[in-house]
Amino acid sequence: MSKPKVFEKPTGVKDYLPEAVTKLRSIETSVLNCMERWGYSEIITPTLEFYDTVGVASSTEDRKLFKLLDRKGTTLVMRSDMTAPIARVVSSLLKEQPFPIRLSYHANIFRAIEAEAGRDAEFFQTGVELVGDASSESDAEVIALAIASLQAAGVKEFKIALGHVGFLTGLFNETLQERKDEQQSLKECLLNRDYVGYRERIKALGLSDALQKELEGILRLRGGEEICAQARQVTKDPVAQQSIAHLCQVWDVLKAYGVSEHVLIDLTMIGDFSYYTGMTFEGYAADLGFPVCSGGRYDNLLTQFGRPAPATGFALKTNRILEVISKQPSESSFRILVAYKAAQRKQAFLKAQELRSQEGTKVETRLLADDSGELAAERLDNGTFLVNGIAYGDVIEFG
Amino acid sequence: MSKPKVFEKPTGVKDYLPEAVTKLRSIETSVLNCMERWGYSEIITPTLEFYDTVGVASSTEDRKLFKLLDRKGTTLVMRSDMTAPIARVVSSLLKEQPFPIRLSYHANIFRAIEAEAGRDAEFFQTGVELVGDASSESDAEVIALAIASLQAAGVKEFKIALGHVGFLTGLFNETLQERKDEQQSLKECLLNRDYVGYRERIKALGLSDALQKELEGILRLRGGEEICAQARQVTKDPVAQQSIAHLCQVWDVLKAYGVSEHVLIDLTMIGDFSYYTGMTFEGYAADLGFPVCSGGRYDNLLTQFGRPAPATGFALKTNRILEVISKQPSESSFRILVAYKAAQRKQAFLKAQELRSQEGTKVETRLLADDSGELAAERLDNGTFLVNGIAYGDVIEFG
Repeated sequence: MSKPKVFEKPTGVKDYLPEAVTKLRSIETSVLNCMERWGYSEIITPTLEFYDTVGVASSTEDRKLFKLLDRKGTTLVMRSDMTAPIARVVSSLLKEQPFPIRLSYHANIFRAIEAEAGRDAEFFQTGVELVGDASSESDAEVIALAIASLQAAGVKEFKIALGHVGFLTGLFNETLQERKDEQQSLKECLLNRDYVGYRERIKALGLSDALQKELEGILRLRGGEEICAQARQVTKDPVAQQSIAHLCQVWDVLKAYGVSEHVLIDLTMIGDFSYYTGMTFEGYAADLGFPVCSGGRYDNLLTQFGRPAPATGFALKTNRILEVISKQPSESSFRILVAYKAAQRKQAFLKAQELRSQEGTKVETRLLADDSGELAAERLDNGTFLVNGIAYGDVIEFG
Repeated sequence: MSKPKVFEKPTGVKDYLPEAVTKLRSIETSVLNCMERWGYSEIITPTLEFYDTVGVASSTEDRKLFKLLDRKGTTLVMRSDMTAPIARVVSSLLKEQPFPIRLSYHANIFRAIEAEAGRDAEFFQTGVELVGDASSESDAEVIALAIASLQAAGVKEFKIALGHVGFLTGLFNETLQERKDEQQSLKECLLNRDYVGYRERIKALGLSDALQKELEGILRLRGGEEICAQARQVTKDPVAQQSIAHLCQVWDVLKAYGVSEHVLIDLTMIGDFSYYTGMTFEGYAADLGFPVCSGGRYDNLLTQFGRPAPATGFALKTNRILEVISKQPSESSFRILVAYKAAQRKQAFLKAQELRSQEGTKVETRLLADDSGELAAERLDNGTFLVNGIAYGDVIEFG
């Protein structure tokens, strides 16, 4: 095993240079501000949690967790999502606070294995959890807020795909009864959006023509409001029927928000997380293969922390959004160099102070040797000045 | 080993509830903004670094590092400061950028063992590094910026203690020559501010009366500008003399900044970090035993990353500042509840949207059952409304 070189970083993590940080900070600020206006208050939880509590409760596969031991030998994990830590806080520090509880966060998240797939092992998520409200109203609220947050982040074109875990669960129970392994394998095809594999597996199941058609037919259940009506015809399973009815209600509320144009019902969608219990959704931006946000209802998680309660929420995949949003013309803050000889130091500092108090200026100061002539500032065509290879909007000399 | 309870967190880490987050965010934003105006650009580095590179280069004792293994068996550390990661970035991604380079950061930092002393194992630092300038001018700049940052953070009363590692090194070499262990032991007394122990150890050294007086005398070298003149009389060692001359120059620049009233020269001060090579400083707020910031010059660190360069910087101890600043009257943002029956949903959402676009409002919406009467909102004496145990500045009902 060779020693890493001094300038190397671990696989899957990265540095954000000033330009990227400016964009990231702008997304973070705009989105958290948007969430705050919808009544969500920001919290911060620790990077490290116990494996046996938050680690196990999180939706992350065990092999994807960064694990370490504390000094007592207890296994810790670096947080792999924010939903489980927030469930812990709602059940402990906030246990006296009445429902509904609306919380927001912006946090870095760790997934050990992603690096091997060329993905980030550490990345940012900005999201909310709405705890203590089981209604379709609250599901619609988090979807509408996800839309408002994407807009606040500067994502211009996107679609939200909306599904419900109960529809597929009900349908598969109806058609495949106790064949749980086959159900799981079909779900995995859908999760990976492997529709060819899904069709092949159905053919291999040896079902009646009617059942085979029923299972194949759901691939067409993607579209607008009309999908709800179509889906009602596909299955008589009560769980599936209830799920569709719930989605119809969510759709009605989204129409009242005036945002249904951004939403697409997709009954083949399966949330990434094993703990989703109801509606799930994912946001897709134009020209990007990965979702820019995902969310859903998880009514069982809080029970694990001793305060049973329904809950719904979403997370923006902040790093993906960083890739999507057009390189915004940075607020071209004005960088000024105040250069001075020692005798004029005080005047120079006063000038710098005055300039710093103006909106949007950055001011550097630089001492010139007493025996030096004027500063070697090269004036460029675009009106800026180049001093020792650094560009300034203006250069002011004292002495 | 008992399993942790579901609501427990690892020792030394904590949750920040909304009120604390509001304060923390306000410090973070004000300070980073202040640093930006002084020409410092923010960067973000990963939480995990290689042990063999950044881990070893950092000033943190080995036993205080959180270590873990990556999938290839290489040892990683959770960052224990930001100075070493920034040195890595300056020497790699920014290696073409001409000096001076001014960078800022706000980051969480990890120290494994602190928890046992009742201190945080994860905490925030907000700071800057000024790389590529060896002058007293740049030392004074970071001190003046530390003062401006503390003021921006809302710390009202504080003092900066300013020292220089060269003074004690020179003095001890002169008086104790090759007795390195004794030198180290005296330095440890001073680091721990154990002045009784310092005096006792000097007595035990069997020095001449003159040398003993000389070593004892430095405990009085704390005060204003006059200390430089006094220190010059104490020792003839050239390293010590040079250090004093440098501090005098820094002091002159601080006077030009108009901030010397906040600064106290303290030649008994030893920076916490083994990599400091020149001036060091610490900031103390009234009524707090711990420093609220610390910094200094480290001219050898960059060499370890292959781009030798002088550097100076400081970090605010953001969590300590959180404790110091008075509970600021939070910008009492106005929380409004818009309650509605299903038939009035659209009007209610439009009203919520309109209110959210106003400055400083937070708006929650809530569906009322069709057969319910008016909302049970209790009007309190202070003019707010209590609904199901939650206080609102205003309640608006539709339907």
